Amino acid sequence: MSNNTESSRSALANTLERRFFYIPSFKIYGAVAGLYDYGSPGCKLKKNVLSLWHQHFVHEENMWEIDCPCLTPEVVLKASGHVDKFTDLMVKDVKKGTCYRADHLLKDFCNKKLEDQDRRISPEMAMELKQVLSKLDGLSAEELGACIKKYGIRAPETDNYLSDPYPFNLMFQTSIGPSGSSTGFFRPETAQGIFVNFMDIYYDNGCKLPFAVAQVGQAFRNEISPRQGLLRVREFTLAEIEHFVDPEDKSHVKFPTVDKLQLPMFPRDEQKPGQSARLISLGEAVHSKIVENETLGYFIGRVYLFLTRLGIDKNRIRFRQHLAKEMAHYAADCWDAEIETSYGWIECVGIADRSAYDLKAHSGKSRLEAHEQLSEPREVEKLVISPVKKEIGPAFEKKQKNVLEALEAMDEEEISKMKAELDSKGEVDFFVCTLGEHVSIKSSMVTISKVKTREHQRKFTPSVIEPSFGIGRIIYCLFEHSFYTRPDKTGDEQLNVFRFNPLVAPFKCTVFPLVRNQQFEEVAKDISKSLTSAGISHKMDTTGTSIGKRYARTDELGVPFAITVDSTSSVTIRERDSKDQIRVSVKKAVSVVKELSEGLRTWEDVWWSPSQRWKRFWRSCFRFILSRN
Amino acid sequence: MSNNTESSRSALANTLERRFFYIPSFKIYGAVAGLYDYGSPGCKLKKNVLSLWHQHFVHEENMWEIDCPCLTPEVVLKASGHVDKFTDLMVKDVKKGTCYRADHLLKDFCNKKLEDQDRRISPEMAMELKQVLSKLDGLSAEELGACIKKYGIRAPETDNYLSDPYPFNLMFQTSIGPSGSSTGFFRPETAQGIFVNFMDIYYDNGCKLPFAVAQVGQAFRNEISPRQGLLRVREFTLAEIEHFVDPEDKSHVKFPTVDKLQLPMFPRDEQKPGQSARLISLGEAVHSKIVENETLGYFIGRVYLFLTRLGIDKNRIRFRQHLAKEMAHYAADCWDAEIETSYGWIECVGIADRSAYDLKAHSGKSRLEAHEQLSEPREVEKLVISPVKKEIGPAFEKKQKNVLEALEAMDEEEISKMKAELDSKGEVDFFVCTLGEHVSIKSSMVTISKVKTREHQRKFTPSVIEPSFGIGRIIYCLFEHSFYTRPDKTGDEQLNVFRFNPLVAPFKCTVFPLVRNQQFEEVAKDISKSLTSAGISHKMDTTGTSIGKRYARTDELGVPFAITVDSTSSVTIRERDSKDQIRVSVKKAVSVVKELSEGLRTWEDVWWSPSQRWKRFWRSCFRFILSRN
Repeated sequence: MSNNTESSRSALANTLERRFFYIPSFKIYGAVAGLYDYGSPGCKLKKNVLSLWHQHFVHEENMWEIDCPCLTPEVVLKASGHVDKFTDLMVKDVKKGTCYRADHLLKDFCNKKLEDQDRRISPEMAMELKQVLSKLDGLSAEELGACIKKYGIRAPETDNYLSDPYPFNLMFQTSIGPSGSSTGFFRPETAQGIFVNFMDIYYDNGCKLPFAVAQVGQAFRNEISPRQGLLRVREFTLAEIEHFVDPEDKSHVKFPTVDKLQLPMFPRDEQKPGQSARLISLGEAVHSKIVENETLGYFIGRVYLFLTRLGIDKNRIRFRQHLAKEMAHYAADCWDAEIETSYGWIECVGIADRSAYDLKAHSGKSRLEAHEQLSEPREVEKLVISPVKKEIGPAFEKKQKNVLEALEAMDEEEISKMKAELDSKGEVDFFVCTLGEHVSIKSSMVTISKVKTREHQRKFTPSVIEPSFGIGRIIYCLFEHSFYTRPDKTGDEQLNVFRFNPLVAPFKCTVFPLVRNQQFEEVAKDISKSLTSAGISHKMDTTGTSIGKRYARTDELGVPFAITVDSTSSVTIRERDSKDQIRVSVKKAVSVVKELSEGLRTWEDVWWSPSQRWKRFWRSCFRFILSRN
Repeated sequence: MSNNTESSRSALANTLERRFFYIPSFKIYGAVAGLYDYGSPGCKLKKNVLSLWHQHFVHEENMWEIDCPCLTPEVVLKASGHVDKFTDLMVKDVKKGTCYRADHLLKDFCNKKLEDQDRRISPEMAMELKQVLSKLDGLSAEELGACIKKYGIRAPETDNYLSDPYPFNLMFQTSIGPSGSSTGFFRPETAQGIFVNFMDIYYDNGCKLPFAVAQVGQAFRNEISPRQGLLRVREFTLAEIEHFVDPEDKSHVKFPTVDKLQLPMFPRDEQKPGQSARLISLGEAVHSKIVENETLGYFIGRVYLFLTRLGIDKNRIRFRQHLAKEMAHYAADCWDAEIETSYGWIECVGIADRSAYDLKAHSGKSRLEAHEQLSEPREVEKLVISPVKKEIGPAFEKKQKNVLEALEAMDEEEISKMKAELDSKGEVDFFVCTLGEHVSIKSSMVTISKVKTREHQRKFTPSVIEPSFGIGRIIYCLFEHSFYTRPDKTGDEQLNVFRFNPLVAPFKCTVFPLVRNQQFEEVAKDISKSLTSAGISHKMDTTGTSIGKRYARTDELGVPFAITVDSTSSVTIRERDSKDQIRVSVKKAVSVVKELSEGLRTWEDVWWSPSQRWKRFWRSCFRFILSRN
């Protein structure tokens, strides 16, 4: 949008809904917050965005693909930590029971106080509120509760008191199978389906690292208070990549192809009030350790190229590094690709080095590990655990198999911890993931000892670099960056235009007979048929409305080219943004539009082609002669 | 499969899992019945199938598209009837609590008895069991229970007694929003999202009928006992089309393009033991009212063309009409496209004329109706209901608005029924859908009278013709129809091949350097790069294995073409099924594969092209001369 005011945002929102890019779902039943339907143009745009994503990442990087179900059993999401920790802090209206996100209430309160021109607050108070805003994401339940009490924040609709903040799990829960005893969730991200298949894919890849696996699909989060249209919803399309790499070698063979890119980076240490992102070359960022490693840097570069290829304004992208407190404790580094909109900077892609966390989390039952053949065997001393079966058998009876498996699956660090505890207390609480419960292990049940062995291979848990794309958010940003208005001929009315690039535009062209006339309509139909067999999505407008109005209608859908049939031998092709027109023969019209919309030629190429230049030259000669007579 | 034995089915299953077409989901946690992951080749195949579906239906038929959420509020599925009626009959092991589908147990029992060669049953018993099998789908809970008792069927694992059959709702239930008070389900089909948007799309279409809306997406059914791999699963991809049409005119403008098609049809009246489908032309089927109307007939034809274009064996497709008892009471006609597999005939596409049922079901709150401008106004006498507000107000207080709306939304048939009941009883139970409850309407609360009006337009609820595609099932059938084995060179081993047609094959070609050699590898890499920029999905095999083994590996993935680099100027291209090879220059290799894999040229075209014929001629001359020396 040229100007990010409320009014242009509402012009955009109005156009998007009126032309059915997307609308609230189940409208006739009063809609459900956070759920949207994509209509025809929205579907086509989304498909084109995903197809470009697929070409740019999966195809060009030769990635593995997988397509896992949304429905996920509890055991998987227990291991990943989602059952216990995938929560937002919620407060309740103590009388009405209405629920709110605690941080949203506090944020709204601070912003309102700071913006309130009538009742200016003291500079100290303003400073305090700004500080609260800056650390909002990292506040604990207690800290949030304290702020809410301190500032006397009440329920917005009723002014009732609020409960203390408490965690609310954001996953949609259900029950799998007829007995009702097996809990399942709808996945909050697609990544877990990739991690649990790591070993099979590793073998299929000839036990070689690195390799990447991509997945596109629906994910679900039971947001407490969905808002801002497509930006915070309860069901959305995620496109995720898990790139598995040796933790001792995070270089990337294609890094030299992006290292010269100058990107707006906003490193952790520079994120202070008044500061903003600055251009740094990726090569320098990795070299100076602003970005932790080459692979992470490579993906930052690829994400930038993808977003700009899509049509996101390159001046409104920045890469913001997570603050230490924003990052999970296991993450080695994390950058968000943020896009500027009328709502501020929006996180659209997360690019994280998640270290070995995910594969280790799922290693409870069987180790998810890679190995490297050593050129020479090495002698190592290892802590080894041997279960004493005659003690474990009677103690755990039916559960003994699970306990034995869990003991045997321990790594050296875990064994060492257990040894320390057994030495001091003689007993230890031990979690058996396949049982989902803790059991008590006594000193007599295991022997732990150091053993010298010769190792021929190095075993390790690969690190994971994860670029994760919120497709709906990217599409919303694309809408904002593509939308503009321009006056109509009379200057009385503002017309809406989406400047979608031809690759992602939902429809590539519209076919218009200039006037209602059987001959022209026949030609238009023939052109439409050829466009269909060429696989080019298009519209046909045979209404008798003026050509200007018909252009406006098609501009509002972001259709880049209009074929106007004004003779039976040749047609004009008009480009949406420049409104420039060229004339081509009926025969050539489809192939020109095909090349333009597949990105094989640009409008400039066609416009400046010798044949078009000659045509323009002869037309101006002709006009000149006419003007002389 | 050439022969449908258990052994070839297991060879197929083994190949599919080993080459990662699809595998049970969450395997490291012991898997969940009825959930599968598609691996790389499976993902690509599925994408190609969907893309062909999109081209064949959405694009070529110029359909509307929509993309609605899976998460659906209860009110929508209550109105559609799913909350009350989307059930299967279940029985429980009375001691263990294990659940079974009642009809599956009965079916297994009958089949086992009939197949048991050792203990032959009497001819009368055999006849009885066959009859039970033939009417299995239509049995009520009581009838199923009676059969289970009569034959003494017990729980398969424990031999315990079974409970009486009772309905189990197949939808996955969850709760939307933080309060826990709003029930939601994961959609069991995608169609409802289309119906609730009917009015908006109708307006967008300029209030013209017919038009069709397509949706592709995930659907979920909590099957009691998932089985047979991809054929009965708990999450699956549906592709559905809702074609809205005037109930008084179900002709289709493009019917003449399919009316000559001779299809294997299996009409209702002919479905008796020993009978099978017979070839009938679509034109005749519609003319003789075997198929209810042209639109239904048109879609039957298009479905057939789609399936055969995909690679389904045309001799193993049939269209079976639903028996009267299989059809919902509102359906006007219904045909299944069934495909023959080693599991028998499998329903893969349902093509139903659902009349006005769905739009009427959602008309509780606001009418979903179309209108037709009449050339001349007509005088009509209509039954009209007028609520008496001063009676309704006090009686329903806060609910009065909902009651009034519901009364005003009644159609003439409903008003007429209410009038009859009020006249006889003075009171009537009335369902208010927006409240989700029944209220009692007394005679004093409404006036019902006949009113004469002049109508300028005819209002009506459109009929819906619905072709609904189970994509996973179609893909499984494609696997069976494409799989075959052939002996290797030595004749000792059977090699697996998928004869996927190039359009749907997951990978279009494999690039092999004939021997390990830097020059050949460079050429192979260059070819791979060009294939990538041309958007052609391919594999590269640079292992040192023998070329025969490498061909076998790629045949097993159904890759149609292999480019073997055996010089730096030209390469051979081998076709998978014929094993024929042609020689082309390195420069031309990519464009030849592109044309072949996009279906622009067939292998036969290329094989018989003059240049290839000359090359073969010169090669045979050369061989002849060599043999003479």
